[in-house]
Amino acid sequence: MISPDLTNQFLAIVDPARWLDKKEQLFCYAYDAFVEESMPEAVVFPETTEEVSQILALASAHQLPVTARGAGTSVCGAPIPARHGLVICFSQMDRIIEINTKDRYIIVEPGVVNADLQAALAPDRFFFPPDPGSMNMSTIGGNIAQNAGGPRCLKYGVTLDYILGLEVALASGKVITFGSKNIKDVTGYKLAALFCGSEGTLGLVTKAILKVVPVPETVKTIMATFKDLDDTATAVTDIIGSGILPAAMELMDQLTLNAIEDKAGLGLDREAAGTLLIEVDGMAEACDKQIRLILEKLHAHHAVHIQEAGTASDRERLWTARRSAYGVFAKLAPDIISEDVTVPVSRVPEMVRRIIQIADRHKLRVGILAHAGDGNMHPMIPADKSNAEEWERVMAVFDEIFRAAADLEGTLSGEHGIGLAKAKYLPLVMDPGTIDFMKTIKQAVDPDGILNPGKFV
Amino acid sequence: MISPDLTNQFLAIVDPARWLDKKEQLFCYAYDAFVEESMPEAVVFPETTEEVSQILALASAHQLPVTARGAGTSVCGAPIPARHGLVICFSQMDRIIEINTKDRYIIVEPGVVNADLQAALAPDRFFFPPDPGSMNMSTIGGNIAQNAGGPRCLKYGVTLDYILGLEVALASGKVITFGSKNIKDVTGYKLAALFCGSEGTLGLVTKAILKVVPVPETVKTIMATFKDLDDTATAVTDIIGSGILPAAMELMDQLTLNAIEDKAGLGLDREAAGTLLIEVDGMAEACDKQIRLILEKLHAHHAVHIQEAGTASDRERLWTARRSAYGVFAKLAPDIISEDVTVPVSRVPEMVRRIIQIADRHKLRVGILAHAGDGNMHPMIPADKSNAEEWERVMAVFDEIFRAAADLEGTLSGEHGIGLAKAKYLPLVMDPGTIDFMKTIKQAVDPDGILNPGKFV
Repeated sequence: MISPDLTNQFLAIVDPARWLDKKEQLFCYAYDAFVEESMPEAVVFPETTEEVSQILALASAHQLPVTARGAGTSVCGAPIPARHGLVICFSQMDRIIEINTKDRYIIVEPGVVNADLQAALAPDRFFFPPDPGSMNMSTIGGNIAQNAGGPRCLKYGVTLDYILGLEVALASGKVITFGSKNIKDVTGYKLAALFCGSEGTLGLVTKAILKVVPVPETVKTIMATFKDLDDTATAVTDIIGSGILPAAMELMDQLTLNAIEDKAGLGLDREAAGTLLIEVDGMAEACDKQIRLILEKLHAHHAVHIQEAGTASDRERLWTARRSAYGVFAKLAPDIISEDVTVPVSRVPEMVRRIIQIADRHKLRVGILAHAGDGNMHPMIPADKSNAEEWERVMAVFDEIFRAAADLEGTLSGEHGIGLAKAKYLPLVMDPGTIDFMKTIKQAVDPDGILNPGKFV
Repeated sequence: MISPDLTNQFLAIVDPARWLDKKEQLFCYAYDAFVEESMPEAVVFPETTEEVSQILALASAHQLPVTARGAGTSVCGAPIPARHGLVICFSQMDRIIEINTKDRYIIVEPGVVNADLQAALAPDRFFFPPDPGSMNMSTIGGNIAQNAGGPRCLKYGVTLDYILGLEVALASGKVITFGSKNIKDVTGYKLAALFCGSEGTLGLVTKAILKVVPVPETVKTIMATFKDLDDTATAVTDIIGSGILPAAMELMDQLTLNAIEDKAGLGLDREAAGTLLIEVDGMAEACDKQIRLILEKLHAHHAVHIQEAGTASDRERLWTARRSAYGVFAKLAPDIISEDVTVPVSRVPEMVRRIIQIADRHKLRVGILAHAGDGNMHPMIPADKSNAEEWERVMAVFDEIFRAAADLEGTLSGEHGIGLAKAKYLPLVMDPGTIDFMKTIKQAVDPDGILNPGKFV
């Protein structure tokens, strides 16, 4: 509980304009893009590492739960303050501190929006590869906390692969820094990796040194449609298995494609059971050759219609279709759950079949959107949470989908994280000793358990 | 101390043929490729995870120091049993358990030699990118413990980037597994990264799931020589800064080149102050174009002589020169220290100048070998440890080199690790709070401190 006296102590650290504790203000910080919610008692907007440190020290002294928040775009409930307490919102710590493309790094505060970071790098023709669906809104702090992925992570890897160094405020308020501006650095434990993906349960990132890479000379994008979803999925495994590594390889099923077409009228083929959006990048000559090889594979798997983006605006149109899928789908019903199971890529066709069978059996619509080249699948179910009977079926579907993924040697999350959504499923893919080991680490680093309590650890 | 009674208990776990405790046997396990040594009391060669687990549980019960060992090729003293006790040598756990290039992974035991893993992947035209200089001898377990790099890590990243999952035996003997066969997996903390690079201080890897990648269609290799070492280094920063990312970019100075030429008679240009070995890979057309762009840069920086490897055996010859440098250099004196400082790539020219100045001032020969595209530099000093006065100067040189690297925002190690060699220099690049934090982790995971005691944490 935050008493009036404790509030005053917080207000000695930050200006009252950066402190919210009225119920109508707090509602906005009770949820993210997942379907649950839980109210904080107050929200604070620090502007400096020093303030974050002081806030944490004070919270620690009062064993007050603290949950970090960026833009709240998480789809797994990671920034939901499950045990109430204080939300630290990083939106005011959004400075880009240094851009150094010669040495291939950028230094930012956690509240910088992913797209703003990309924009800052663009004049130098560099970019930061992780491109989560939320990139126009989500912050780098959130991307790091969740180890965010995105379409082009197929070729480029995920957020963790781009962290060179971090400054982190621990639960005690102590601030530590590790890593460096060096691309290669094996000096001491790789602590960045402990915090990246820890969903705010071990410490709060207050500054990040990120690796950046040059924009490729050329990008080529094609969209292919198939009469059969199984053909679509096997085309993916065949292309990946043959050693071609596109920058992105996105799969959409018919329901998803039609939802987009209803909304956006892009002239997409409504009859297509499966659609692939494939992008290659690199030197122009290499792109041409990759596209040639990919086209051969697509034809071999009975692609019906193949469309190449001839211009930047054509390309933009294809990606708009892909990127709008979640938003369009979310409007089909009052609520939506977008899941994130991942399987080894050779299991993608089987997993697609199982997802459809499971949803059919429970008489629910499921749209499938997948970073298919990575085996990372987002089955999306629009439904109405206030309809208890329907919602129970939604839960049953995801329960079975998680079990199917585990059965195919897959895992619970490729890029969204565990958060509130999947904590209870951890034992499906992790043995009890490993879960205990995570608790050992958590206990050592945050002995009072004030950081994002009520989550997966 | 390992009493006769304790020995008998170990011999109830492993066959006596896999237990060494005679002084003449133990000598071989007292050192690695660094210059110090410390005798173990016994060496055991487990064949299974179960045996490793039982050995650790017994060692734990007797608070016996345990140091893991692969092939002993470390150049930082990581596998030297500084506090004596037991060495667990993984050379008998060398099975390749599964190769699945369709899903881009391989599962191996820790004793598999890096080159054997490469050979096993070759028929599928896949490879495992980390290629430390020791790859023909060093084991995957050691590569993971040290987060090993190598020339082609410039383009492909280091060992950590290729770990999908691990099985680890903890100090208690408890075995945990984490990660999966999935390329993308954010289920729980990224524990692989905690163990990779921890130099055997947190747990012992007993099995690894590693990501593998397709062999590129084409490889092109060129060697360029320069009259001026500064031109050599600035050519590197200019090429990297322009956005070209070769697979490897190795720099050698005149002393190193002449040492190789003395030994191998490859017809290298003895007058060259600096030499670059540059390799690009990918699709043939892209390689040609990259080479063209690189040649322009090399000419702009006054390269004197450029030699392109026309055939596989030409390429082999160029790499033989590079790969033999350490061995040849090691023969110039009874002892050698090869260091591993790293600086942001734009600082490479300055760092090269400083290394030479420092060595000159102390009247010592220094050879420079660098993964220059990464800013990762290996200054090598051949000397005689039994000559106390000379050895003092060697230590003084490295002391100044570490300080120079820190001064240029570099770090102590790019790929060799800290081990015994550099523990005392950690405070140069890491604040006391971060060192304390590593100790907190160490204490939580190995409360009795039996794993590789006497090292950097």
